Amino acid sequence: MPGLGDIGEFGLIERIRARQREYDADVVIGIGDDCAVLRRGNILEVLTTDCLVEGTHYQPGWLSMEDVGWKSMAVNVSDVAAMGAVPRHAVITLFIPERVTPEDIDDLYEGIEACAAEAGVGLVGGDIVKIAGPFAVSITLSGTCERDDLVLRSGAREGDIVVVTGTLGDAAAGMEHIRAGREPAGPAGEYSIARFRRPVPRHRESRIIVEKLQPTSMIDISDGLISDLWHILEMSKGGVSLCGEAVPVGGGVLDLVGGDRGAALALAIKGGEDYELLFTVDGKRAEALDEVAAEIGLGLTAIGKIASKKTGFVLAADGVESEIGRGGFDHFKSPAEESKEV
Amino acid sequence: MPGLGDIGEFGLIERIRARQREYDADVVIGIGDDCAVLRRGNILEVLTTDCLVEGTHYQPGWLSMEDVGWKSMAVNVSDVAAMGAVPRHAVITLFIPERVTPEDIDDLYEGIEACAAEAGVGLVGGDIVKIAGPFAVSITLSGTCERDDLVLRSGAREGDIVVVTGTLGDAAAGMEHIRAGREPAGPAGEYSIARFRRPVPRHRESRIIVEKLQPTSMIDISDGLISDLWHILEMSKGGVSLCGEAVPVGGGVLDLVGGDRGAALALAIKGGEDYELLFTVDGKRAEALDEVAAEIGLGLTAIGKIASKKTGFVLAADGVESEIGRGGFDHFKSPAEESKEV
Repeated sequence: MPGLGDIGEFGLIERIRARQREYDADVVIGIGDDCAVLRRGNILEVLTTDCLVEGTHYQPGWLSMEDVGWKSMAVNVSDVAAMGAVPRHAVITLFIPERVTPEDIDDLYEGIEACAAEAGVGLVGGDIVKIAGPFAVSITLSGTCERDDLVLRSGAREGDIVVVTGTLGDAAAGMEHIRAGREPAGPAGEYSIARFRRPVPRHRESRIIVEKLQPTSMIDISDGLISDLWHILEMSKGGVSLCGEAVPVGGGVLDLVGGDRGAALALAIKGGEDYELLFTVDGKRAEALDEVAAEIGLGLTAIGKIASKKTGFVLAADGVESEIGRGGFDHFKSPAEESKEV
Repeated sequence: MPGLGDIGEFGLIERIRARQREYDADVVIGIGDDCAVLRRGNILEVLTTDCLVEGTHYQPGWLSMEDVGWKSMAVNVSDVAAMGAVPRHAVITLFIPERVTPEDIDDLYEGIEACAAEAGVGLVGGDIVKIAGPFAVSITLSGTCERDDLVLRSGAREGDIVVVTGTLGDAAAGMEHIRAGREPAGPAGEYSIARFRRPVPRHRESRIIVEKLQPTSMIDISDGLISDLWHILEMSKGGVSLCGEAVPVGGGVLDLVGGDRGAALALAIKGGEDYELLFTVDGKRAEALDEVAAEIGLGLTAIGKIASKKTGFVLAADGVESEIGRGGFDHFKSPAEESKEV
């Protein structure tokens, strides 16, 4: 009998997804995007859930309780932002082992509330439970959205420009610093560590991107550029031609790999947890990228173009074209571990 | 520094609740009822989250994976029913230790889907995560509701009749059978065990009760009659005079305690996890109790009357009146363990 390690996380998700019955008429999107989308009277609601588990998403000492609080909220806000929706209300479940003190919970809430306040999220309920196991936080976040603003993973069309916000690989580099117990050499390294501990969800930027660029598809980069771009390709039934030289590699990544551009690119396209937005726009609208980037105060970089499905996923770097597989991080199979949205 | 064992679960909930900032205008009810209540365009949404953790809510071998699936959904459906709302859409997070097989997850989903189908719930998303700890399922469930149908904990008025559905103590008796590894003597004992393993949420009954009896307050009995009635008293700023002889004690409870009526009553009013509805109705409307009971095919028993706050919680049994304290089960303090809604 195969264990979960054999079929992997994506295998398990497929197994669960394959069970899916028909949805009722109020389900616009069920399993398969950053959030579910539900009709609620005359508006749309998006709903997502994401958790942070000690020993799985981070090791003891990697994050303060305040960091855990911030990050557990931020990853959910990021999912709502990826739909073009406005984050609204959250319920929070805490799994609390014996050793945790009330002061730890206060610290956790400082972090949760800081991120919630920043994103306009109201904390409206939850559950607390004792656990003979690791500390864990599970948050379910709702958002609301006008129909015209909703952006799915499935709308990318051949010829659309692939755009990413900010820089990539920072969080992965930061985690490497923390894992190795290394003091970063300078501000780029410190920024990397901050990106891992306190990712900044792009919910404000998302609103402006939706309004000004009308993206045809969007996702947040949680598993890594390759893995998350593959989600768009699968849902949009397309392929992609990516320009390696264009990928905005984080400064901390170059620091970490001693300036080796190839190694830095590899980390930037495979490393997860940056929580930047990845989206596609019509070629004409892409002309406004610089203007919108200036407005949101964050880089918007065109890194490639959507192609036909038979193109697959092609990465051109250093004059060589490589075929890229579905090489996201499948963490039931690999030593690095993370959760996967169903 | 005090640990969680010292301040207890309710103490921790109070600590979290005390942090509460102001809610935005779309939050009708935040922390403090069975569900949060949110304005969504022109309708109301209720939102609740509840989890089941191995080693906390049940011990290995007490429940099959199918039971765990059923029960994890049922406890959430029960919370939505307690608001007078219709269960709608759920997101599910699974915390999966190494030893769990894909077949276990199939079994779990059989149980989740059976309860979801029965309650009309759509499974629209979730998260799966590896855990170096016990198996756990966390579900967040939404429901929808017309404003007139919404029933809170806070509306009980002096003179209202206190009513409970079905029978009480069954689940606690069933858990005792399972804990002791005892084969139940007859059908009453088997029913008790089924009540613990597969609680039946009263969502259909709730709809009819709301329509026909217009309850002034309602809650589901998850922590036990005393504990949950105290929630109504606190939120409604009232007291209660309860008639011990009227409490509908489950047949399996009497079996378990060898017919000792006092011991049976104690288990029925303290034992949790029955997931029956506890509500209050105006004296005049209470005249229709038998008629509505016949319609829903489930007992509706008047067990007492709401009194002034200074009455406190009085239980009359065997001609003796006792003052009942806030003696719910606080599971960070006691050996029996459970989660608490925030």
